[in-house]
This record gives sequence, C-alpha cells and structure tokens, in this order.
Amino acid sequence: MSVLVVGSVALDSVETPFGKADAVIGGSGTFFSASASHLAPVQLVGVVGDDYPLAQLDALKQRGVDMAGLEQAKGESFRWRGRYRHDLNSAETLETRLGVFSHFSPKIPAQFRSAPFVFLANIDPRLQLDVLRQVQRPKLVACDTMNFWIESRRPDIVELIKHVDLITLNDGEARQLTDCANLVKAARWIMERGPKMVIIKKGEHGAFLFKGRSIFFAPAYPLEEVFDPTGAGDSFAGGFMGYLARTGDLSDANLRRAVVYGSAMGSFAVEKFSVQRLLEITPADIATRVAEFRQLVAFEEELPA
Amino acid sequence: MSVLVVGSVALDSVETPFGKADAVIGGSGTFFSASASHLAPVQLVGVVGDDYPLAQLDALKQRGVDMAGLEQAKGESFRWRGRYRHDLNSAETLETRLGVFSHFSPKIPAQFRSAPFVFLANIDPRLQLDVLRQVQRPKLVACDTMNFWIESRRPDIVELIKHVDLITLNDGEARQLTDCANLVKAARWIMERGPKMVIIKKGEHGAFLFKGRSIFFAPAYPLEEVFDPTGAGDSFAGGFMGYLARTGDLSDANLRRAVVYGSAMGSFAVEKFSVQRLLEITPADIATRVAEFRQLVAFEEELPA
Repeated sequence: MSVLVVGSVALDSVETPFGKADAVIGGSGTFFSASASHLAPVQLVGVVGDDYPLAQLDALKQRGVDMAGLEQAKGESFRWRGRYRHDLNSAETLETRLGVFSHFSPKIPAQFRSAPFVFLANIDPRLQLDVLRQVQRPKLVACDTMNFWIESRRPDIVELIKHVDLITLNDGEARQLTDCANLVKAARWIMERGPKMVIIKKGEHGAFLFKGRSIFFAPAYPLEEVFDPTGAGDSFAGGFMGYLARTGDLSDANLRRAVVYGSAMGSFAVEKFSVQRLLEITPADIATRVAEFRQLVAFEEELPA
Repeated sequence: MSVLVVGSVALDSVETPFGKADAVIGGSGTFFSASASHLAPVQLVGVVGDDYPLAQLDALKQRGVDMAGLEQAKGESFRWRGRYRHDLNSAETLETRLGVFSHFSPKIPAQFRSAPFVFLANIDPRLQLDVLRQVQRPKLVACDTMNFWIESRRPDIVELIKHVDLITLNDGEARQLTDCANLVKAARWIMERGPKMVIIKKGEHGAFLFKGRSIFFAPAYPLEEVFDPTGAGDSFAGGFMGYLARTGDLSDANLRRAVVYGSAMGSFAVEKFSVQRLLEITPADIATRVAEFRQLVAFEEELPA
C-alpha cells in the first residue's frame, strides 16, 4: 500500500562539529520520502521554488517516490540554516527563509487521494486540516507538528487532532501542547482529544508509542558517530509509516515493529548529511539494524527456580 | 550470596513540587540496602553521628540488612538538603553538611570480608580503594562515583577503576570522566582502563550496560507520578547487585536481567520520599514491575512473508 506525505522540500545548510553542508536537499517531506520509500511506494506533495536543484530529487524518484504532487512555484525555495554544538542534542536555527513555502497550499493530485496511509508532516495545522478535506477516508492518518505551531496556532492543532489517528511530537512539544510535565499524562491528554495513538520522540533517548493503556518504548540506536541529527524525526516517521504501509497491518504487535523500523531509519539518517545515508542503505542494512535493536533490549525470561 | 555495600547513611531534607520531607533517612548505603535486601542478604558499612534516628533503620534490619558495620561517631550525621523543580530531572543541592562522614574511614568487619558481591557506593575514591584492600577477592566488585570526585580526585578514580569489575555512573559523569561526548565511546574509554562492564544511568531516560562489544539498554519505567527522584541511582544499583547476588550468575543473559531488576527497584524508589516505597513493596510487586518492563520493550519477530 502507498503512503502520501505532505511536507516541506527544502534546502538545508548545516554545521555540526564534524563538518558543514551547504544548501543540501532537506525538509520533512524529503526525509520522510527517502526513509519510507525503502518500505512502500511514496507519494510526495510539496512545493519548491524555481531555484531548486530538482535533479537531486531524481534519486528519490528512482526509489519509487511519486513526485506528481511536487509543485514548482516562482520564487525562492524554503531554506533553513542551522548549527549543532558538541552534544548534538538541539539545533540552533541561524536562519529560516520560507520563500514559496509561505504561500503553500497543498493540492492533492486526484490519483493520490485514495492513499491508505497519510502523513501530514510538520506544516501549518490549517494546511494539514485542508489536506484531510481532500483525501478519502485513509486507513491511518498521522500528523507531526512543532513548537512554532503550538505557540501560534494552538486552536487549529486541537481541531486537527480530532481528525487524526496518531500524532508524533517530541517530548518538549508534548509538554508544551498539554501543559503536563509527565509524558504519560501528556499522552493521555492528547488521546482524550482524538488520536488513538501518540508517539513521543525523545531524540537520542528513544521514542514512546502510547495506545490506550499500552506503552511501548524503543531506544535510539547507540551510534558511535552521530554526524548530523537533521531529519531524524521525519526519517523515523517515514520508517514507521512505511512499515505500516508495507504490511497493511495495524495490530498492536505490528505497530510496535513499525516503531522499531522508525527508530532504525532515524538512526541511519543521522549518519551522514542530508538524505545521503538513507539513499545508500540496502534492505540488508535495514534488517541488520532491526536485529541490532532486538539485541539492544532483549532479555530472557528468568528460568523457574 | 550476600552483598557488601559501603556508602553514606544520611539525613535528607527534600523539596519536590509534590511536598517536603525533613531529615528523613537517606544516603547511598541506605537506598542501596533497602533495595538490594529484597533480593539478597545485605551487609552495610557506613557511619552516622550521635544525632541519627537509629530506630528508623530497624525496618532495614528486619529486611535482613546486617548493620554490624554501621559505626556511630560523635558529632553530626551527614545531612543533605535539596530541591527538585518541575521537571524532576536534576536536584539542586541547597546544603551539604558532611558531619562525621568527613572523617569516615570504613572498617570492614571480619565477617563481611568474604562477601562475594561488593558495592562501593559514592564516597571518596581513596576510601573505595581502601575497602578493596580489606576484602578478600569477591566474585564481583562494582563502584559508583560522582562529579565532585571526578573533579577533585580524578587520579584516584583512574586508579580505582583498575580494580573493579564494573562502574556505574550517570551520563554527565561518564562524559566528564572520559571527555567523550558519545556514550559508546565513553564506555569504551572506561573499559580500556579496567572494568569489564560499565553501566551508564540516564535517569528518566533509562540505563545502558556495556560489556565488551555488547550493549544492553533498559528504559526507565514511564511512571505517571514521579514523587521524589532522590536515591533512584542507588536503588538501581541495589536491584542490580541484589539480583546478581541472589542468582550468583554472571552470564550475559543474567546481567541483562539484573539491569531490569535495577530499573524496577529504581522505579519504586521514586514513588515516595526516602526509602518509604522500597520498604512497602512485596515480591509480587517486583515481579509485576519486571513483567511490565518486558511489555514495555517487547516486540515480536516479523513473520516470514
């Protein structure tokens, strides 16, 4: 089954303790697509300016990402410039230029409207709601958001989450949205307002999946070299949604596996700049990393005394 | 088999967003003993002043903690006063009065010297080394430390770790000791200098066990109510060492189970002030929490396509 993603397609300039990358392809839609396309067909909806190096998206096309929903508008592409310090935990945004993204109004191509899995990446919640009006009842709709929207468009987020099955957000955003310091309570607050499931991402500290009273936790893979954390969250979402779309199975057991696939894809994303590592990896690499995740948390039942 | 612990026996005054406790029993030796005594016989070595409410330690005695090594000296007991803010992540120390603890020189009673499991809780590394000179070759020696000693007694810590099998420290301390921001590298740095194993505790974000090339991770239990984080690390150590002492088994599989027992005991410790919750819980409570840990991280193998 296919996954529809609506998100940003941007140009990132990133500085980490290990190097610099200038105007490389990035954005939530791009990372999500590069990740999910390992697992399922992806349909991307976004906008770029007339300065965008479209040829660099060819690698995504070759991976089966359908670009029919990628609009090219007159003007400058969305550009983000950021820096990570020594601990790599949080990006310092040096510059954001929205460009054509500031007038983005997602138009879902007719052939995308019946996508069974829909991911509303981090864009204005009013646009996320608008996308939902354009699609036919999908099997699963998930959305992401960020602090900026929680501050400026809170009522729209509260409206949006009535209509999604799952929301992904990081721990700080979950606390900010719900005003609960405790993540279990924050997840419950959200689930009382619509979503059946909440994924709270804690970066290098892993991710929780809350569903009703059940809680699943997957650690982040303890990499020796985290090169550039940009896009880890969207790559996580791509792995999660891609795995669900590949299997078409929304059972609890499969949702847990999907979180592990998300964590695996997030762990690849941070190994190189941009989507570079996501474009290199093979199905065998993914299978190996998933097996390593199992090893990381596996403990056997105690033998009866 | 028994566990010998050498550590502080203190009086804590703690303020959290949920309440205040004044001069309640605390200290690394106390929390460790309250935790480990659920799993194995414990031998405690420490010092208190003549102001200590010794009757409050009776509950530990009843749990099988041998107090023959608890010295009472003339003067004031070790007192710590601290406060946790809303996020409960780090204690703000308001006052530390070492009292009789500043002249503590651990004397291991003859009948404790052959303890097969030894835990050197967070005290001056010179005293930790001194304890090692007094004990006969144990099956496993573990030590803890803290930022204060890493700053002031670094060469002694480097000497100490040549002689221990395992060190527990938190993520900040691991980075401080090794000057490696990456925890995998930090653990390797330490293992190259003596210990076969390293446990890096990340508080609410769980704990890693490193042993050679193998890494095990156990999350912290996602409690809805964290009441008072004081003593969580020592209770973790108590659960870990206690489980090893109960089973006498140092296999990889059993070390992993021991980490889960440590996490379970740490999760109980934070549910009430002081050792209150640790004194209430039953074997059934512990078994239930360990089973919940399994549920928290369990994911099944994918069925072949």
